[in-house]
Amino acid sequence: MKDLKTRILAAVGQDLELIEKELKSNLDPHLDLVREVAGHLLFAGGKRLRPLLMVLAAKACGCQKPSVFRFATIFEYLHAATLLHDDLVDGGAMRRGKPSAHTVWDPPTAVLTGDFLLARSLSIAATAGLPELIGVIAGITENMSQGEIQQLHRKGALDMTEQEYYTVIKRKTAVLFQGACRAGAMIAGAAKERQQALSDYGYHLGMAFQMADDLLDYAQSGDTLGKLPGADLREGKLTLPVIKALEKARNDDLKLMRRIISGQKFSKQEFDTLVHFLNIYGGVAYTRSRASRHVSMAKKALESLDLSEALDVMHDIADYALARKL
Amino acid sequence: MKDLKTRILAAVGQDLELIEKELKSNLDPHLDLVREVAGHLLFAGGKRLRPLLMVLAAKACGCQKPSVFRFATIFEYLHAATLLHDDLVDGGAMRRGKPSAHTVWDPPTAVLTGDFLLARSLSIAATAGLPELIGVIAGITENMSQGEIQQLHRKGALDMTEQEYYTVIKRKTAVLFQGACRAGAMIAGAAKERQQALSDYGYHLGMAFQMADDLLDYAQSGDTLGKLPGADLREGKLTLPVIKALEKARNDDLKLMRRIISGQKFSKQEFDTLVHFLNIYGGVAYTRSRASRHVSMAKKALESLDLSEALDVMHDIADYALARKL
Repeated sequence: MKDLKTRILAAVGQDLELIEKELKSNLDPHLDLVREVAGHLLFAGGKRLRPLLMVLAAKACGCQKPSVFRFATIFEYLHAATLLHDDLVDGGAMRRGKPSAHTVWDPPTAVLTGDFLLARSLSIAATAGLPELIGVIAGITENMSQGEIQQLHRKGALDMTEQEYYTVIKRKTAVLFQGACRAGAMIAGAAKERQQALSDYGYHLGMAFQMADDLLDYAQSGDTLGKLPGADLREGKLTLPVIKALEKARNDDLKLMRRIISGQKFSKQEFDTLVHFLNIYGGVAYTRSRASRHVSMAKKALESLDLSEALDVMHDIADYALARKL
Repeated sequence: MKDLKTRILAAVGQDLELIEKELKSNLDPHLDLVREVAGHLLFAGGKRLRPLLMVLAAKACGCQKPSVFRFATIFEYLHAATLLHDDLVDGGAMRRGKPSAHTVWDPPTAVLTGDFLLARSLSIAATAGLPELIGVIAGITENMSQGEIQQLHRKGALDMTEQEYYTVIKRKTAVLFQGACRAGAMIAGAAKERQQALSDYGYHLGMAFQMADDLLDYAQSGDTLGKLPGADLREGKLTLPVIKALEKARNDDLKLMRRIISGQKFSKQEFDTLVHFLNIYGGVAYTRSRASRHVSMAKKALESLDLSEALDVMHDIADYALARKL
């Protein structure tokens, strides 16, 4: 697994540098305070996975245009905009190891800076001269906001279904991955079939990625990403491992699980009990197998494309989505 | 003045009906809750001035396409999106005579519904197939968020300058009016000079409109729009009548004004004293004369266009911007 990460980073090192440079220079002509607030989150060491996917998708379609790095920032700005709004929604106090913007400044500043970053990403997209690209980006934002609203209003609902869960993670995560990959193909001027193949890759990668993230919440140690185990549950977010285990558990076990979940302020011991149930009732294994199927489908989507270095990296990233944490 | 309003409403009655119909049908395929929250604000009796301006601008360029009404909704959705975020920023409890969305639901729902409406407006814009139109809309949103941030962080600042004030109202109001008018010309396929003329009209109308709104805050009776006099000041927003009077006042008068303004929770008597100073030190008269100049410039911008019924209404609207309240 370590090798996989090293290999990916070695292959994309130069791309990441160029993305970083563009992320900075695109904010330059703006209000100092906006730059400061946006920069607080933007330059706190994100993985830049979304812009990287766009660059790789463009390269996989043979695109050599240097402008691709500028367009790639669209997807990091979009991502940062939603993080700024989501942290507020979740009341998250930390982000990327730093206090979140709404605690350093205030909630209104975080909201408005999110709006600004969303607008910035559109301004950049508008310069590509591709109306369909705008449609993709607007569609992502429509989906993400609806996904978040849906999740917010099903907070703590013990009757959340597997199908609802898929709709939520598709909207809040997969459509952005999907859009970044499709946009890369669009910028490259690729034919519809290639656009579709890369879009499918992005969608399945995003689904796998979010499921892996949701599994991490119930891993025994939360050191991988600095995320505290049980955080989702504390926010009332029921994810697939829990939904599936609730579906299978019976009698006293079910009662106990429901009690722990509804409590939200559970003890370490209660949390361990819950994790035990997620394991014995197959919630963890089921989620892992679903995630793994999405990884396979992501890789399968790449089969129709010509071999290239970019394609190899995309393959590795699909494997890493699951390998990094499980 | 009554006649002016009657004449405008008679001329645009059918346009307003078509705009209303589109505002509803464009939200149809979406999540129930999103529709409900968005509808709460959207259908609380707004004046639809921004979409109307776009329709009139298109008609003034000879456009007869029925699709113009769908595109016009872009500017009402955009406006509603910013109201949802701004009410949160200002802590405003009422909007259009109803409790604001963030008090009926909660702040996160208001933020996310605002995001959704912003995205919805872009999706509609993307179907026009005009990349420059997207640039206009993204530019509006960049400006509006920066204007709000600027206003927020200069809250209560007694050294706010006239120039700063113009920048803020340009960003938070005039660019949207300007964009709606320019977009109308774009949809009509008008030449650059006509686009520019209508853009200039929108800009000056927006500036006049905001100044008139700011004057209303110091009018003796606040019944015109259901707005409580002194509301801006309570939120720490220093507008032109105050800025100008502070510039001219001396000694004890200046001290007293500063004390009242800094207090924010001033009494009725203190507020009346302040209004008295705004009048004797010319803050009100100066603002009115600046607004009036913008009305003249708005009308002047229309001179290069061919005569039409739409043009007459735009003329009347410019007059009404100031007449309605002063």
